[in-house]
Amino acid sequence: MTLYSQLADRLREHIKLGFFNNGDKLPSVRQLANEHGVSISTVQEAYRILEMEQLVEARPKSGYFVPQKNHVIRMPKLSRPPQRPLDVSLWEDVLNMLLSREKDAFCQLQHAMPAMHSNTLKPLIKSLYELNKHRPYEGMTYGDVRGDYSLREQLTRLTAASGCVLHPDELVITSGCQEALSVCLKAVTKGGDIIAVESPGFYGAMQAIKAADLKALEIPTDPSNGMSIEALKLALDQWPIKAILVTPTVNNPMGYVMPEEKKKALYQLAQAYDIPIIEDDIYGDMVYEFPRPKSIKSYDEDDRVLLCSSFSKSLAPGFRVGWIAPGRYRDKVTHIKYVNSSMCPTLPQIAIANFIRQGGYDKHIRVMRKQYKDARDETLKEINTYFPKGTLISFPAGGFVLWVELPEQYDAVKLSEQAQTKGVSIAPGQLFSATGKYRNCLRLNFCDRTSEIRLEAIKILGNLLAHMQIQEEKKPRKRIQ
Amino acid sequence: MTLYSQLADRLREHIKLGFFNNGDKLPSVRQLANEHGVSISTVQEAYRILEMEQLVEARPKSGYFVPQKNHVIRMPKLSRPPQRPLDVSLWEDVLNMLLSREKDAFCQLQHAMPAMHSNTLKPLIKSLYELNKHRPYEGMTYGDVRGDYSLREQLTRLTAASGCVLHPDELVITSGCQEALSVCLKAVTKGGDIIAVESPGFYGAMQAIKAADLKALEIPTDPSNGMSIEALKLALDQWPIKAILVTPTVNNPMGYVMPEEKKKALYQLAQAYDIPIIEDDIYGDMVYEFPRPKSIKSYDEDDRVLLCSSFSKSLAPGFRVGWIAPGRYRDKVTHIKYVNSSMCPTLPQIAIANFIRQGGYDKHIRVMRKQYKDARDETLKEINTYFPKGTLISFPAGGFVLWVELPEQYDAVKLSEQAQTKGVSIAPGQLFSATGKYRNCLRLNFCDRTSEIRLEAIKILGNLLAHMQIQEEKKPRKRIQ
Ligand SMILES: Cc1ncc(COP(=O)(O)O)c(C=O)c1O
Ligand SMILES: Cc1ncc(COP(=O)(O)O)c(C=O)c1O
Repeated sequence: MTLYSQLADRLREHIKLGFFNNGDKLPSVRQLANEHGVSISTVQEAYRILEMEQLVEARPKSGYFVPQKNHVIRMPKLSRPPQRPLDVSLWEDVLNMLLSREKDAFCQLQHAMPAMHSNTLKPLIKSLYELNKHRPYEGMTYGDVRGDYSLREQLTRLTAASGCVLHPDELVITSGCQEALSVCLKAVTKGGDIIAVESPGFYGAMQAIKAADLKALEIPTDPSNGMSIEALKLALDQWPIKAILVTPTVNNPMGYVMPEEKKKALYQLAQAYDIPIIEDDIYGDMVYEFPRPKSIKSYDEDDRVLLCSSFSKSLAPGFRVGWIAPGRYRDKVTHIKYVNSSMCPTLPQIAIANFIRQGGYDKHIRVMRKQYKDARDETLKEINTYFPKGTLISFPAGGFVLWVELPEQYDAVKLSEQAQTKGVSIAPGQLFSATGKYRNCLRLNFCDRTSEIRLEAIKILGNLLAHMQIQEEKKPRKRIQ
Repeated sequence: MTLYSQLADRLREHIKLGFFNNGDKLPSVRQLANEHGVSISTVQEAYRILEMEQLVEARPKSGYFVPQKNHVIRMPKLSRPPQRPLDVSLWEDVLNMLLSREKDAFCQLQHAMPAMHSNTLKPLIKSLYELNKHRPYEGMTYGDVRGDYSLREQLTRLTAASGCVLHPDELVITSGCQEALSVCLKAVTKGGDIIAVESPGFYGAMQAIKAADLKALEIPTDPSNGMSIEALKLALDQWPIKAILVTPTVNNPMGYVMPEEKKKALYQLAQAYDIPIIEDDIYGDMVYEFPRPKSIKSYDEDDRVLLCSSFSKSLAPGFRVGWIAPGRYRDKVTHIKYVNSSMCPTLPQIAIANFIRQGGYDKHIRVMRKQYKDARDETLKEINTYFPKGTLISFPAGGFVLWVELPEQYDAVKLSEQAQTKGVSIAPGQLFSATGKYRNCLRLNFCDRTSEIRLEAIKILGNLLAHMQIQEEKKPRKRIQ
């Protein structure tokens, strides 16, 4: 990444996080150049980008300002979930969403499905069908229950990018990250235990907690940097928490990356209370920034972190290839993986291993990161334009989903139902809570179909919301009459 | 199946079950013809087959006799497991077996892996390759969590052959039968519950019981017709059993088919005690007899049977395509399947659905049943010839594994270790008990490689056993000196 776009990113983030008010003057070009040790032209280039994004205004002779008009995209505030362990509910809603996959939908923004038509995926597709043609029997026998060795070798390379030093024998292949999470939960808990989770958090993990008869303790979570360490510490003091489950690097649904210092602090807390961390890194390689941030696992000096991931977001979910680096829980994890679904199909594993070895993976994710980042910027602006005043939007640092917080009076479940009839699907916020909070929130995918179609879908959602607003405003008046 | 081979089967079974002693005269040709309503020549033909198998001797003018020489293959007796619920142990041994898959082994008799080089599988392999080539995106997206609809439709046809009347919505696709069993166990129990199982029984199910923190109550099981209904009733009276898990149609490891009346009695017992039955039907289509016997599920008037199966034995395990007909537990099963590993890969499902629709499946299993049956007969005779006197062998009614009970003083774990060094692998009996019984037993696959190689492997095992015997006899003498 060039210096100017790095600087632009930093400034953009500060503006979006609300470090400056509307109309505020921004630091001068000279000031920034000194502060960051870069050239004047680098700073000018960075400001030029932000100007294009309508995030800053250049005023002749005066410098750069945050615009007066409320073009600024504001982020949601720290979440305030109930401060006690609760049973996870809402399975029916999750199931309905999983099943609502009408092929003829105009634009599907509800699934966390990556874009899969890039040419950079072609070599993988080809390799898979050629393996099916030339080595079918390898796909037909029972393979290694820990997964194909060549893939585990390549995974030691991939995970090295996040600071991990792993041997192939320290990895277990799973049917996607969902199985990884489910197996890890079972490896470190027993029925009735309490698990600390982010709030909002991924519904698949919430449902795995439910199925394992565990209780979720939702920890207040900051949309810009993740689970509150202070709140987590309070919770650890108050409750017998048995494990912490986090998605710290490109969170689903909010897209933040937990800063390194905070990751370290979280790890130290787990050490102090002697509990394991289940780290979901499924979007880790999809961070726009390069090199990617370190995982919590990279600080894991006493093998208490169970790193879970898959190729579902970086390549394609249908391959169902995920993995666990289970640390000290390896034997238990291997056992549970075996009883859970026995071995995983071999050929997709070999195809992916080849794809990584031949450089195809790195190339593909480089292309996708750029594409997703552009789509994020576009989508943020569009939502800001078409959604009601007072809408807050998360600012994803990677991946292809974002989190929208509508003003209190809106109901995203209603929006979802209405949108469905117009061929647009969204993921209502309450799926991301153990107990149905976040009714005024939604998660949107921003990589389905083309920019044009997505813009159309966002306009449709905006229209529905505008209409809803009117109804909401009318109702009370009627009652008064 | 022709009349004479049906009759030969019945006679063979009676002889093997020990209805006649060595040297006994068998019923006359005329007597049998009357009894079974068949022609004289049919009976003669049946006896001719048994003569070839050295199971009967024709004595001129006197009729047919069981030979004096102990050529008769004797079956193991009713098992006598401990009569109390126990924690399942022996995971390390199972893992070692799963991992001992040296590619260069001369003959692998330890895995329950079907033969997969039949030409009748070619259309399936081709279809899978073509789907991967021409419709890769269907393999790359998240599919239906309940499984591909076209496959579920075809499964309603297949399961109809065992007497089930199912709608596609009453089926959930899983990653093999292992996931099916694991999901069903979780759907009907909670930690600490007791499950009644066969003894010996499939180690994957035993380990699933262990992983779900359940206790196994091994019920005495008859090698010729399955779990003892009387013993089960006693156990139900004595313990709060929460579910019965059985493999009644071609049991693994013993190969028996539980007779219809006994299946009904088992079902009625489950009704009386109001508990579910998890029925593992994975080998159900591999019964040599045609049409195949009914499943317990076919009697399921109140939806308490969870039928589990997969294509791992009929087609190939590497596809990892299994299913559940979960009856009244459908919603819970769907939930647990989702959290367990999310959806299953789509293309193998479509390929198998097409294969069934186009008649490929029926044709394939017809061919395999014949092949396995011939291999069984060969292998039974070889084991009887080369294994020590006093060896008991199960008489599989289908599939491709059998159970051997060596005289008490033999140790199958030792045999397994020694055989491994000679490139032959076997499954030691203790894996099939919750607690390491059956040390003098082993399970053998009889479809790996060619007849010649298998014969070689059985001779190797026989030699090792002969040698072991000598050692065993020597040792006590030494001690006495
Ligand atoms: C944070 C997170 N973890 C896990 C998963 C499950 O991934 P997979 O499809 O690999 O099972 C998802 C998928 O949506 C996810 O977003
Ligand atoms: C009786 C029985 N049930 C279940 C399984 C597991 O089957 P799958 O490979 O389809 O998971 C096996 C495999 O050996 C088996 O023998």
